[in-house]
Amino acid sequence: MALHFTSEQRLDDVVERDFTLGEIPGILWTPGSATASAPVPLILLGHPPLGLRKMHPRLVTRARHAAADGFAAATIELPGSGDRPRLAATEQARVDLRRVTEAGEPVSDEIIDALVLPLVDQAVPEWQAALDALLSLPEIGGPVGYSGGVISIGIRLAVVEPRIVAAGLFAGSFVPRTMFEEARHVTIPLHVLLQWDDEGNDRQAALDLFDAFGSKEKSLHANMGGHTGVPQYAGDAAAQFFTRHLK
Amino acid sequence: MALHFTSEQRLDDVVERDFTLGEIPGILWTPGSATASAPVPLILLGHPPLGLRKMHPRLVTRARHAAADGFAAATIELPGSGDRPRLAATEQARVDLRRVTEAGEPVSDEIIDALVLPLVDQAVPEWQAALDALLSLPEIGGPVGYSGGVISIGIRLAVVEPRIVAAGLFAGSFVPRTMFEEARHVTIPLHVLLQWDDEGNDRQAALDLFDAFGSKEKSLHANMGGHTGVPQYAGDAAAQFFTRHLK
Repeated sequence: MALHFTSEQRLDDVVERDFTLGEIPGILWTPGSATASAPVPLILLGHPPLGLRKMHPRLVTRARHAAADGFAAATIELPGSGDRPRLAATEQARVDLRRVTEAGEPVSDEIIDALVLPLVDQAVPEWQAALDALLSLPEIGGPVGYSGGVISIGIRLAVVEPRIVAAGLFAGSFVPRTMFEEARHVTIPLHVLLQWDDEGNDRQAALDLFDAFGSKEKSLHANMGGHTGVPQYAGDAAAQFFTRHLK
Repeated sequence: MALHFTSEQRLDDVVERDFTLGEIPGILWTPGSATASAPVPLILLGHPPLGLRKMHPRLVTRARHAAADGFAAATIELPGSGDRPRLAATEQARVDLRRVTEAGEPVSDEIIDALVLPLVDQAVPEWQAALDALLSLPEIGGPVGYSGGVISIGIRLAVVEPRIVAAGLFAGSFVPRTMFEEARHVTIPLHVLLQWDDEGNDRQAALDLFDAFGSKEKSLHANMGGHTGVPQYAGDAAAQFFTRHLK
């Protein structure tokens, strides 16, 4: 799939360029000086399926952090999010999730599977196609890291995509049981963030998932606060993880 | 109790001074330039009850790290360790521990209580006396942090000693059940290291202990490797924690 830039703006220290990859919208951030200098490593910025427009402020913050460390950052819209067509396979699961959540019932494995697995199956090849296109740009070199977002997408990418050499994962979303098996096949260095009091997260499942990862180097950083309350110093530690592995 | 310096040597970047506090041996490390400049914050270096002589190489490494960040570091011998008289109250528990460990049996709460609680009860007032003496030195100011060693000593100190404003704890030793209750009374910022595969540590107990701490700011950093396999970057993260809270 061909990557076409559709707009460009300079934000102080980074250049932000919107692009399309086929029908998929995406954004690339490069350090202000990158086009004039040697190719830089790349961090793929994962995000929850809330749409790039809604996520934009938080993505820009993360991209600036990456640029300050000398990295490019890029993201693409997830299937079914933003202006992309709804993902038919997950629509019923979304309705079911809303129903059990409002009723205060536990979210069943069936709902989690139906919600997450089709998203992972469709998203992962798209992120790989984005990687093909981004790594062909002269200003992007490697190595590549993956950061945040839907953790199951990060797990699958870490297993199937050899160009990703390190991943920072956020233990804050539903994880289908089959992903625990996939996690055993992850061998790249991992930095896992867990919000200890995340109301929407199953803490024990997050600890079990951390235990399952096959990586020899893996760190779990648990901090206080809810889902969006990740402290500044936790972000700094994640940045240091990528600096250790991508430089 | 009066503090008497008994020897002094310069190790490149730090000045190491042995001292006695009454009958208790101790060591103070100050940044090479400290005596000539403003008073510096202090980190108390906890350690396992193996004797200061045996622990010296690791303590020097930690003290150098502290000095590089602008901190003094100090430690004292634990009751019953090194050249100090055996701690009669724990002798039977040591025998019992060896017996059940060699037999591959679980270590009972009774053994853990008998092993740890008398040590905590005697050590904590000694560390407080050391703090009195150290803070009266012109080259030591504050604030004070406590780092590592027997975690129950760190917990008790964090509860009873208001001059300690931040603690880095190592979840790697037996914890009496009553310490979980004391942990709820800890309110200072905590940085807790857990070696995920520490063969001598009960991982679930460590996670429960982390959950029990009353501190609003607490981070758990879990890394791979055994008891002594704490990776370099985990030490760096702990150093950054103290820099955030002692500067």
